[in-house]
Amino acid sequence: MSLFVHKYGGTSMGSIERIKNVACRVAKWHRAGHQVVVVPSAMSGETNRLLSLAKELTPFPDARELDMIAATGEQVSSALLAIALQSVGISARSYAGWQVPIKTDSAYSKARIMSIDGEHILSDLKQGRVVVITGFQGVDQENNITTLGRGGSDTSAVAIAAALKADECLIYTDVNGVYTTDPRVVPEARCMPRVSFEEMLEMASLGSKVLQIRSVEFAGKYSVPTRVLSSLTDVNIPLDEEMHSGTLINFEENDNMEAAVVSGIAFSRDEAKITLIAVPDTPGIAHSILGPVAAANIEVDMILQNQSVAGCTDFSFTVNRSDFKRTLDLLENDVVPAVQAREISTDDKVAKVSIVGVGMRSHVGVASLMFKTLSQEGINIKMISTSEIKTSVIIDDKYMELAVRSLHKAFGLEHSSDTDSV
Amino acid sequence: MSLFVHKYGGTSMGSIERIKNVACRVAKWHRAGHQVVVVPSAMSGETNRLLSLAKELTPFPDARELDMIAATGEQVSSALLAIALQSVGISARSYAGWQVPIKTDSAYSKARIMSIDGEHILSDLKQGRVVVITGFQGVDQENNITTLGRGGSDTSAVAIAAALKADECLIYTDVNGVYTTDPRVVPEARCMPRVSFEEMLEMASLGSKVLQIRSVEFAGKYSVPTRVLSSLTDVNIPLDEEMHSGTLINFEENDNMEAAVVSGIAFSRDEAKITLIAVPDTPGIAHSILGPVAAANIEVDMILQNQSVAGCTDFSFTVNRSDFKRTLDLLENDVVPAVQAREISTDDKVAKVSIVGVGMRSHVGVASLMFKTLSQEGINIKMISTSEIKTSVIIDDKYMELAVRSLHKAFGLEHSSDTDSV
Repeated sequence: MSLFVHKYGGTSMGSIERIKNVACRVAKWHRAGHQVVVVPSAMSGETNRLLSLAKELTPFPDARELDMIAATGEQVSSALLAIALQSVGISARSYAGWQVPIKTDSAYSKARIMSIDGEHILSDLKQGRVVVITGFQGVDQENNITTLGRGGSDTSAVAIAAALKADECLIYTDVNGVYTTDPRVVPEARCMPRVSFEEMLEMASLGSKVLQIRSVEFAGKYSVPTRVLSSLTDVNIPLDEEMHSGTLINFEENDNMEAAVVSGIAFSRDEAKITLIAVPDTPGIAHSILGPVAAANIEVDMILQNQSVAGCTDFSFTVNRSDFKRTLDLLENDVVPAVQAREISTDDKVAKVSIVGVGMRSHVGVASLMFKTLSQEGINIKMISTSEIKTSVIIDDKYMELAVRSLHKAFGLEHSSDTDSV
Repeated sequence: MSLFVHKYGGTSMGSIERIKNVACRVAKWHRAGHQVVVVPSAMSGETNRLLSLAKELTPFPDARELDMIAATGEQVSSALLAIALQSVGISARSYAGWQVPIKTDSAYSKARIMSIDGEHILSDLKQGRVVVITGFQGVDQENNITTLGRGGSDTSAVAIAAALKADECLIYTDVNGVYTTDPRVVPEARCMPRVSFEEMLEMASLGSKVLQIRSVEFAGKYSVPTRVLSSLTDVNIPLDEEMHSGTLINFEENDNMEAAVVSGIAFSRDEAKITLIAVPDTPGIAHSILGPVAAANIEVDMILQNQSVAGCTDFSFTVNRSDFKRTLDLLENDVVPAVQAREISTDDKVAKVSIVGVGMRSHVGVASLMFKTLSQEGINIKMISTSEIKTSVIIDDKYMELAVRSLHKAFGLEHSSDTDSV
């Protein structure tokens, strides 16, 4: 007997029919003798509907009250799932985050989980019940309801799996797993049977929006084996097949992982690049430039500062294209005069493409192969940034698909380098 | 400075515009220096929408899970009201029942309030906040969410007013107050400035569905001055006028009340009368007849057993017309053979009309005037039942309006016998 935590997203919970389907899937695991805890999201569209009610009252509603409102979506879907389970003969009970309790800090709308008391859950499981726990929410020290931010149900599921020392946390979603890159861009993209936590972190932050990045951090921190798999498969496929489908995000490195130098290609469109040319290379210059940007709540992605020449340096960074105009206004009005930059050079039609793989740590020449591949396709590289397990480049956005496809081929990602059967 | 508890029903909270209106009304009280606790219902239609989702899964969903679902309606409306108050410059905070906490027993969907901890509320009020508390719900000893049944928000409001020792509990609704009878039947019906708790209890149970009957019991038990008033008046009417509008349900008897022998005429349509003729008058006969009826969850209203003649008696009772067929089947199949009744006589086209008034206690001849009035109109009385402060008759339902109008006139209810100005 093993203990599994299942997480189902808003689409999987999107209608009464789909909730019945989830109940049948959970029942299959339960009937096979496993203990199951289920963490559902709100029915799709529900959270938006609730928040838009509040926004009708005032453009900036109080964060505490917003969390009170938003948390109801999961309370409804969780109780509905418990009822659906009961109606297929499974003993089930739903709990809101505060009933567990899932204790968080008081950062409304983006709270962080502090602790989870697994006592009641384990006692229910022992009595043969399936336990359904609202995703996305918890309760702070003063008993205020908090939410974890969009996609927070992934984090709830992984955190609950960690607290219960579950054998595996299964994130059911509308894709088959984690791909070597987006199959819409590269039809040969392959679903990876395994990926390391670190690779998953890089993939998630680089735009492969399969999992909320905080849930991956959580899984890594507490070594929770986490699987991403499809909720769209036939509910009657054999349990053994379902158990090995999708992508397992694994904490332990192994030979298979070492073998794959590059695991995947991540990319993000809609980037904009800004360079301040010839700013004096004095201490604190980066803060002088990016401080006001951060204060305006604009998220900065890549940051590059070159070697200074004659006491001056060029300072580049990228922002989301939707923030480009606002960032530029801010720089021109406040920052450029203050830091005495000679000029601003901008490009709001760029994309970021990254190769990710833990194998890059111990293999030389990986970045070179990336640059050679892009050069052969005539793609000019505008910025380069590297970390231990990824190399990112900024290129003209019109070449993005071409770059992803040629890199996917150059690194042999269409052929499985993993000996696991999928 | 006084402390008031306001309760707003689903219609008053039915849209964002109406919630803004409620916020303006509460703000008026708060700005006049009063402490205000607000208890809203769910937005109209919301509770039905939520419960019908569960009913789509199974005809008889688990009661605990249903309460989890239903309770979210008030959580949303309460937080929306807090936001609406904040947006007109009033410091406000919403609490779910479990956060107060409002402790109840574990009778899901019809829980009873056991205790209310007023500490947090009073502390918030002291800090100048308006406190919004979800109606209709609480939490049991094991931290399960419970609901109080339809209309339970009235009970929540009165119970909170009792716990806080509020100066008055104001039930805002879509009528102007409690009338001497239904104005749709008698245009001369008058809104009573005051009514006693006992009269209100009789009026409520007899079909004047202004207040949930349990809230009236609660108000009586804890001597909570409770006012029923309109939420449809212009929100800008002077506070002093609003404070004295509607009907005050008063715990203390006073001269004015003594003066009014009969306070109002209550009635209910859709009754059905069933008589078992010549049943043996043996101990336990009432239980033998009504036990199976109660077991089938059929609510019995009036019950009459006449003096026995020659060891036999006639046993009559009324049920709601919608339960008539079911009751009759039950009696014919199970009860009549068992109790050896000679026959069953039925009438499913009857109505009940009652005169109510605490003054009846000390005034003779009140019932006589009722019978005389009906007789003058040629209305035949089929059953009579009396209590200390009411007399009810069962008549042909086609005469109901005529009976109500003639009784209203005979007891002089169109003229105020109360010296209070309205």
